[in-house]
Amino acid sequence: VDVSSSSGHFERSLDRVVFFADAVFAIAITLLVLEIAVPNVAKTHLQHALGTEGWEFFSFALSFGVIGNWWIAHHRIFGYIVRVNARFLRINLLFLMAIVFVPFPTAVLGRYSDSSTAVILYAATIAGVGVAAALLWWYASDGHRLVVPDLRERRIRYFRLRSLIVPLVFLTSIPIALSHPYSAELWWIWVPVLAIILSRVYPDSLGD
Amino acid sequence: VDVSSSSGHFERSLDRVVFFADAVFAIAITLLVLEIAVPNVAKTHLQHALGTEGWEFFSFALSFGVIGNWWIAHHRIFGYIVRVNARFLRINLLFLMAIVFVPFPTAVLGRYSDSSTAVILYAATIAGVGVAAALLWWYASDGHRLVVPDLRERRIRYFRLRSLIVPLVFLTSIPIALSHPYSAELWWIWVPVLAIILSRVYPDSLGD
Amino acid sequence: VDVSSSSGHFERSLDRVVFFADAVFAIAITLLVLEIAVPNVAKTHLQHALGTEGWEFFSFALSFGVIGNWWIAHHRIFGYIVRVNARFLRINLLFLMAIVFVPFPTAVLGRYSDSSTAVILYAATIAGVGVAAALLWWYASDGHRLVVPDLRERRIRYFRLRSLIVPLVFLTSIPIALSHPYSAELWWIWVPVLAIILSRVYPDSLGD
Amino acid sequence: VDVSSSSGHFERSLDRVVFFADAVFAIAITLLVLEIAVPNVAKTHLQHALGTEGWEFFSFALSFGVIGNWWIAHHRIFGYIVRVNARFLRINLLFLMAIVFVPFPTAVLGRYSDSSTAVILYAATIAGVGVAAALLWWYASDGHRLVVPDLRERRIRYFRLRSLIVPLVFLTSIPIALSHPYSAELWWIWVPVLAIILSRVYPDSLGD
Repeated sequence: VDVSSSSGHFERSLDRVVFFADAVFAIAITLLVLEIAVPNVAKTHLQHALGTEGWEFFSFALSFGVIGNWWIAHHRIFGYIVRVNARFLRINLLFLMAIVFVPFPTAVLGRYSDSSTAVILYAATIAGVGVAAALLWWYASDGHRLVVPDLRERRIRYFRLRSLIVPLVFLTSIPIALSHPYSAELWWIWVPVLAIILSRVYPDSLGD
Repeated sequence: VDVSSSSGHFERSLDRVVFFADAVFAIAITLLVLEIAVPNVAKTHLQHALGTEGWEFFSFALSFGVIGNWWIAHHRIFGYIVRVNARFLRINLLFLMAIVFVPFPTAVLGRYSDSSTAVILYAATIAGVGVAAALLWWYASDGHRLVVPDLRERRIRYFRLRSLIVPLVFLTSIPIALSHPYSAELWWIWVPVLAIILSRVYPDSLGD
Repeated sequence: VDVSSSSGHFERSLDRVVFFADAVFAIAITLLVLEIAVPNVAKTHLQHALGTEGWEFFSFALSFGVIGNWWIAHHRIFGYIVRVNARFLRINLLFLMAIVFVPFPTAVLGRYSDSSTAVILYAATIAGVGVAAALLWWYASDGHRLVVPDLRERRIRYFRLRSLIVPLVFLTSIPIALSHPYSAELWWIWVPVLAIILSRVYPDSLGD
Repeated sequence: VDVSSSSGHFERSLDRVVFFADAVFAIAITLLVLEIAVPNVAKTHLQHALGTEGWEFFSFALSFGVIGNWWIAHHRIFGYIVRVNARFLRINLLFLMAIVFVPFPTAVLGRYSDSSTAVILYAATIAGVGVAAALLWWYASDGHRLVVPDLRERRIRYFRLRSLIVPLVFLTSIPIALSHPYSAELWWIWVPVLAIILSRVYPDSLGD
């Protein structure tokens, strides 16, 4: 194998990009557990102390689901990529920066679940991840810039619409969070609901 | 290499899934050490302070063994996988979520080794990992859904029975832990014992 | 595939080196978020508490950008490497040691943004990373020691000059930081400015 | 590519083992920085506070060098491996468990550099890593069990002797540490010295 050939170079390039993203996902998702505080109380109060950490477990599971689903989405996007360029790499880094940041608002939300500020910080972070992911896909698919040449328009459109769901739902939850933090958290259920509706509208775009 | 071809796509897909799982295993197993507190005492009391951390070292080693063995098991399962689908990916994420959570009950057990609550939290977590792993294998092997077509039924059955050992032992240790936390920890020795017995019953299923 | 052949051995060798570096980059970049302290105040003071963490967010974003750009640079250097030797591996480890250290001065800078000491510690660390990266490239490209044989001299020179920008800017910021810490931080803007100027002078060396 | 074929299966197996080890090395080496405490003092005392952390920086650099060199050694060993079996995997996990544990004695040594207990804990850990690495190589190379068939006996013997240096030096430093902790730390310089002497005795075994 001639590793100096340009196609070999490209393959290794794309592999490293994908690998780096996977590693960042894996680390960010695993660090979430560090944000759950180990209780420091008398032995007899341990059960009670764990009971009061309900929101920390909730925000751990929520962020695990969020990052896990982004990983699957990133996975799917890169399944169609056949080329990368410098700008795409930079958008990808921006996206990863948002992913890496997630454990922080997760920890804040775990500690202050009923605070508007905590919910807004969380919603803004996830919306930011979503905007970066949407940028990634719109940029790559625009005029088939970096994707497989025979990728159908309909599928491109499906993933474009899908990439708007998270920014839309999380941004619109911010005004709600100002007065009703818990309602804003309920509002996020729109994400899976809209995703399912969209997949019904584009039934042939499922798969992989 | 035509990276857009469906088989190339699949290969990369499966590689990413395996890679992501390996990274999560590696991180979770390495984070365990962060849960051992560095003593903060006068120099002359260091030896005594380390001596009192016996249970933290025990729970570190226990969880290292547990996660390490899951890694080998995951490794073995994926050695037979030739296809993945969306549902399998989701079960896999659930499994990884349980793995990622392990450092938390490990730290709690290290600090409160004689507490029923800590032992039950630990046992429930490991049982959860075990149930997810069992699901993963039963789903993949059912009707040879995702596994090598020529995998023998007897071997499938062996791994199915084996996947039940951990949930069985850890779930049955929970009622014991209610009154005797240390006895519950001893009870876990059934895991290697049953694994050895099972491998004697199915001697031809050993290997790799 | 005969994994014992020397070329296969080499391929695996280079892959492991690249992989190890990528993993270290990914972990160092993800650990940055752990240095942002989760506020521990009354719920009504959360917004204020987050507001006072502005510099922690700044130093997180700065170091993310710094490590991210080093990753891209490392990526580019290794795209030209066709051979490794023991000395190169050692320089690479030195470089990674500097990268791994970055979260520490980042955390110090986040907490003491207006302190000369914190700015100097940060500048010295980044300059150290830069010197190690420059060494890596100068050593590999000297007489085409480890790089693709047909790599043009002009491109080698371009990357050599480019590798000097970071050490130059960060080292010269140290005397400034002694009296004006904030001005030293502004001074760092020379890095992207000089990089853009240099890429204009060598327009044909862009790409990758 | 028929991923179900036994050779494909093997290749993937070995890759996962190597990958998992690399990830664990990368994480353990990167976590070292987390053990350096960010000072929490008045701004004007920052310089002084950092000055008192000299031993933390020393133990960070020492452990980085130690883990980095184990990584290179592991790298070299696996360059000769063509087969793995269950026992080898288990020794490898034992080795990784010792590697993963290194950040803990590193942090203890950083905080209690003049304590016999801290030095003994550190020396015992590194000796433990060394014993596991020696086991790994002796087991794999015994009768060419898992290594390339044409690997020369002389090279096997060289690596066997080399694998004894670390356990030897660190175990013999323990009695010294009982009365003179700093002298024990100096004693460790025997490791590079003996490695260089040995490589002079077996000049043809260098390379890779």
